[in-house]
Amino acid sequence: MWQLHQFPLCPFSRKVRLLLGEKGVGYELIRESPWARRDEFLDMNPAGQTPVMTDAVAGLTLIDSTAICEYLEETIDKAPMLNGPAANRAEIRRLVAWFDEKVYNEVVAPLMLERMLKRIVHRAAPDAKMLREAMKVANSHLDYVDWLLDHRRWIGGPVLSLADLAAAAHLSVADYLGGIDWRGHDRTKEWYAALKSRPSFRPLLSERMEIVTPPPHYDKVDF
Amino acid sequence: MWQLHQFPLCPFSRKVRLLLGEKGVGYELIRESPWARRDEFLDMNPAGQTPVMTDAVAGLTLIDSTAICEYLEETIDKAPMLNGPAANRAEIRRLVAWFDEKVYNEVVAPLMLERMLKRIVHRAAPDAKMLREAMKVANSHLDYVDWLLDHRRWIGGPVLSLADLAAAAHLSVADYLGGIDWRGHDRTKEWYAALKSRPSFRPLLSERMEIVTPPPHYDKVDF
Ligand SMILES: N[C@@H](CCC(=O)N[C@@H](CS)C(=O)NCC(=O)O)C(=O)O
Ligand SMILES: N[C@@H](CCC(=O)N[C@@H](CS)C(=O)NCC(=O)O)C(=O)O
Repeated sequence: MWQLHQFPLCPFSRKVRLLLGEKGVGYELIRESPWARRDEFLDMNPAGQTPVMTDAVAGLTLIDSTAICEYLEETIDKAPMLNGPAANRAEIRRLVAWFDEKVYNEVVAPLMLERMLKRIVHRAAPDAKMLREAMKVANSHLDYVDWLLDHRRWIGGPVLSLADLAAAAHLSVADYLGGIDWRGHDRTKEWYAALKSRPSFRPLLSERMEIVTPPPHYDKVDF
Repeated sequence: MWQLHQFPLCPFSRKVRLLLGEKGVGYELIRESPWARRDEFLDMNPAGQTPVMTDAVAGLTLIDSTAICEYLEETIDKAPMLNGPAANRAEIRRLVAWFDEKVYNEVVAPLMLERMLKRIVHRAAPDAKMLREAMKVANSHLDYVDWLLDHRRWIGGPVLSLADLAAAAHLSVADYLGGIDWRGHDRTKEWYAALKSRPSFRPLLSERMEIVTPPPHYDKVDF
């Protein structure tokens, strides 16, 4: 059985969990807080980051969400999430990188710092200016998703793909942290409602991070 | 014919160029300075980043070095650089991410800011403290590469892989910018000398960025 080392608000772990869910692969969650920098965790992953996926019986340690997702795509035929010819697959991977890098760095990471880490680690007040800036950038990213969904059925093309899972992973963490204003983004909201109602998403939505509570609409499919 | 939009010191473009070189694929270089934020470039890649690879005849635009490398691996059989069973491929991808994220963020990006962008864009003096810090971290990353090469023939395993190309891409930019002290890293130096003497590496080593000059040892195979 796979073990996934993560914490509830790690977007990269959420992307892996959504993929495992779609593929119907069982796994056990192991709580890891990378900010604690535990020696045993650093021995496992010198980068000190979640997610890490291990299979003690097979003696496997997989590190980095992109490497893990490619591994799952290569080894499990069910629910392929990198579909189509090579050019389509490149477009899906471009968008995964867009969410993992730009949306994470400009929106999710600042929200995690201000609303999660400052609360549970630094015990400091959030910086209102940083929060406003992150929410403004979030809005421009939602505009881009609206635009994509005006041109294609799903974010990465005509079928559900890893781009949708990556987008949902990052946006769900931003939403948990109160960073998303859905007004004026009907197309993206509709897409997100469809994602939320998938069985792969349910376990994520019902989970809570200690101390930090999400807004009331967070786990509602109809929001 | 492929066109690669890049500038001489972009490490992600170097990774793609090394892969194109190994695979024997011809391409034309198109100079793009992402910091200029040209409208035409932003229309092509909304992320505003190099590399972008285009094929006007086929009507293809590929964005993000990871997506481009996976595309090349999927479409060109020659010189496969993601070798072995799925677990080995995951290890190669973990290390590519290590160089693209950790080494880039902690070493290459600060060096590019202090020694390239401040010179050609901001016209400001480099911050000596930032430079010292980047070089200190570079040294600890070289320790990690020494350790990897004590345990395996190449960085990602028994054969040359994309992990070596990613490592060489980032370390070569850091070296150009005077950020690498090779003393005490014999194993990594030996590995880097072997990489430098490959035909895929020669065109990169002979290229120069305007205004910024590399140290004398930079393009020597014997350094
Ligand atoms: N490229 C990695 C990024 C993972 C990452 O940034 N994880 C965060 C938590 S969401 C982390 O562990 N941060 C702690 C650190 O970077 O020290 C992946 O895709 O898995
Ligand atoms: N994930 C991208 C990263 C590319 C990247 O960061 N490129 C740098 C140049 S080395 C850039 O364009 N920076 C300008 C910016 O981020 O605005 C890739 O792998 O291609």
